[in-house]
Amino acid sequence: MTDFLDLKTVDQILEMIKGFTPLAAEKVPVAAALGRALAEPFLAPHNLPGFDRSTVDGFAVRARDVFGASEGLPAALDLIGESQMGQICQLNLGPGQTARVWTGGSLPIGADAVAMLERAREVRGRLVELVAPLAPGENVILADEDAAAGQELIPSGRVLRPPELGLLAAFGQTEALVRRRPVVAVLASGDEVVGVDDEPRPGQVRDVNSTAIAALVQAAGAKAKVLGRSPDDLAVLIEKVRAAATEAEAVVLTGGSSAGQKDYTLKALAAWPGAEILAHGAAISPGKPLIFGRAGQKSLWGLPGHPAGALITAEIFLKALIRRLLGAEEPAWLGGLKARLARSVPSAQGRRDYFRVKLSLRGSELWAAPALGKSGLIATLVGADALAICPEDGEGLAEGDLAEIRLL
Amino acid sequence: MTDFLDLKTVDQILEMIKGFTPLAAEKVPVAAALGRALAEPFLAPHNLPGFDRSTVDGFAVRARDVFGASEGLPAALDLIGESQMGQICQLNLGPGQTARVWTGGSLPIGADAVAMLERAREVRGRLVELVAPLAPGENVILADEDAAAGQELIPSGRVLRPPELGLLAAFGQTEALVRRRPVVAVLASGDEVVGVDDEPRPGQVRDVNSTAIAALVQAAGAKAKVLGRSPDDLAVLIEKVRAAATEAEAVVLTGGSSAGQKDYTLKALAAWPGAEILAHGAAISPGKPLIFGRAGQKSLWGLPGHPAGALITAEIFLKALIRRLLGAEEPAWLGGLKARLARSVPSAQGRRDYFRVKLSLRGSELWAAPALGKSGLIATLVGADALAICPEDGEGLAEGDLAEIRLL
Repeated sequence: MTDFLDLKTVDQILEMIKGFTPLAAEKVPVAAALGRALAEPFLAPHNLPGFDRSTVDGFAVRARDVFGASEGLPAALDLIGESQMGQICQLNLGPGQTARVWTGGSLPIGADAVAMLERAREVRGRLVELVAPLAPGENVILADEDAAAGQELIPSGRVLRPPELGLLAAFGQTEALVRRRPVVAVLASGDEVVGVDDEPRPGQVRDVNSTAIAALVQAAGAKAKVLGRSPDDLAVLIEKVRAAATEAEAVVLTGGSSAGQKDYTLKALAAWPGAEILAHGAAISPGKPLIFGRAGQKSLWGLPGHPAGALITAEIFLKALIRRLLGAEEPAWLGGLKARLARSVPSAQGRRDYFRVKLSLRGSELWAAPALGKSGLIATLVGADALAICPEDGEGLAEGDLAEIRLL
Repeated sequence: MTDFLDLKTVDQILEMIKGFTPLAAEKVPVAAALGRALAEPFLAPHNLPGFDRSTVDGFAVRARDVFGASEGLPAALDLIGESQMGQICQLNLGPGQTARVWTGGSLPIGADAVAMLERAREVRGRLVELVAPLAPGENVILADEDAAAGQELIPSGRVLRPPELGLLAAFGQTEALVRRRPVVAVLASGDEVVGVDDEPRPGQVRDVNSTAIAALVQAAGAKAKVLGRSPDDLAVLIEKVRAAATEAEAVVLTGGSSAGQKDYTLKALAAWPGAEILAHGAAISPGKPLIFGRAGQKSLWGLPGHPAGALITAEIFLKALIRRLLGAEEPAWLGGLKARLARSVPSAQGRRDYFRVKLSLRGSELWAAPALGKSGLIATLVGADALAICPEDGEGLAEGDLAEIRLL
């Protein structure tokens, strides 16, 4: 009887992945940095915006001059001029005075609030009547309100989105320091596997995993190197792994990872000089026959041949490795996304189950309907919006239970 | 008194966006189709996998032969051969017989279940003892179980993820029919705006929006064409809009969109031949001064100059337009993502408010802490994981309320 002698838990494997070191940093133009992780914290080099600005079109005032203003008793102010865009306003507001200001414009000296144009009545271009009071600071951004010099604005490891790129631009940064994108080599093994553009003979199947895993690698922010297929031939596999390892940070074999007689994947990965197999078998469903190893800073993967099992283990583990190499922080709050289960799902103690679920709204509440289907079925994954997670310390989840979900 | 005379609601504007027609379809290689939306439904051209397959390494059996098997009373079966990978198995299982089969291998004739290797005892290569019963279909995928010929497997409009690309590969598809990516031209207006690599004089600010909006356009799946900056000069703006419109499906101006005297954005957009302004002002916060128009199938946008207002209106409206042009369906369940508010937020009846929130876990529950800050502040958007939505029919949300969130 053959068996996996030492199943590693999901958390044990995720912990091992943290043992890898993020790749070297490189500078890229800000316009090309979308989705990359910042390799250093970004501190504000100076105050932003750097001068007191209006956030609306209107009239700058001293708030205390319009205290108690109302429709019945408007505050009447003398209009003494206009703040020009692109210049620091040199007008000095005395008591009872106001000046025109545009959105983004600099405030006159002495002004501490701006009345919106829509709330003001201009009388013959000399007088402005305000029909409501203003609080000090209303419709104003102070010189250091967006950022104070030296303040940490973006933490290291943050995946750069449009707001972060905008912030870098606001400080004149044209480049961002990010980590080099890892290269992940993908190889499909199995005598029964033919190419996508081949016509499979009876008993053969097309290579689904090269396409799907390469796409997942790309979506995770790495570069995929598709190596094609290998027959169940140990010498060929060893040679292909060796060739891949010279230029890739990770080598992913799909198929041949279970504990059967023809499973050359383990041997091929273990044959790599310095290779250490860290896990052969994981307490996860689907995906139990996972192989994970390392040789120095390179990682070695044997994913199940079933496309669904391969994709789900890649989603959980390979993506975590890629994020680690990119130095990208995964936020803890992601674990807070939840949905109610539309039917009960069985699990086993000590194993973490990832159920493919289709999400829908019942009223305003999110429900997750688990797909009925076996791990070999890729169609059920196509129908899934998310994975619902059944943790190790239970024997399943009941209909109506709130389950943690991971959006796909 | 100037004002927005006719504020459109968020839903009215989203409805107008549906009036645009998705762009023409084009064929792209499957490997380049990640994130694109399928322009036609994909129907299974034939059964998948096409033959009865094992999902495990083990022994194929007739389930009725092992009924009642247990540790104490194992079922003993004659091992008559092995199913070869890549071929349809021609072995014919008689009563009390079994054959070796590998994961993905074809089942012998007559077999309807597979016992896992780990649950079987092989005796001298002739006899196999099974210590547990099997249900018919256990560890087996039937010929049409992944997909039956003619079945719709991927709906039109689905954004292609790794599983969909894998499924296309499984059916030998090397290309996918997707919609052409729209081109979105982005132009920053304002006398006070200088380039990112310029040193702003007092009163000036760097152009944040070109970088941030272009990144958002790219993240949404369109191509950004960055036009740079324009002074507050109507003739220059009109000319730049005209030039942009010839090659872009959408023209986005930032700044100068409110109702003030210097606001040339509206005039520049309205001057485009055939242009119709559909909204000047939206019942949304931030982003009230939004301008939205169309000229035939091209759309015209005036976004607020404040980077946060510009980014949030682009997130809500421009992204919806891009998805519309891509023919990409936004799933309804997205509205079911919710978090509890860590503090009360005020809103106004008739307006939809988008609050920048930082998410965190309290126990296993997701909480959203609204950022304190004004709409001009891009730093608060950098700190935000999501937007919390306060709908039109209320005057705010209370601490502890469940708010709909939109992940950023």
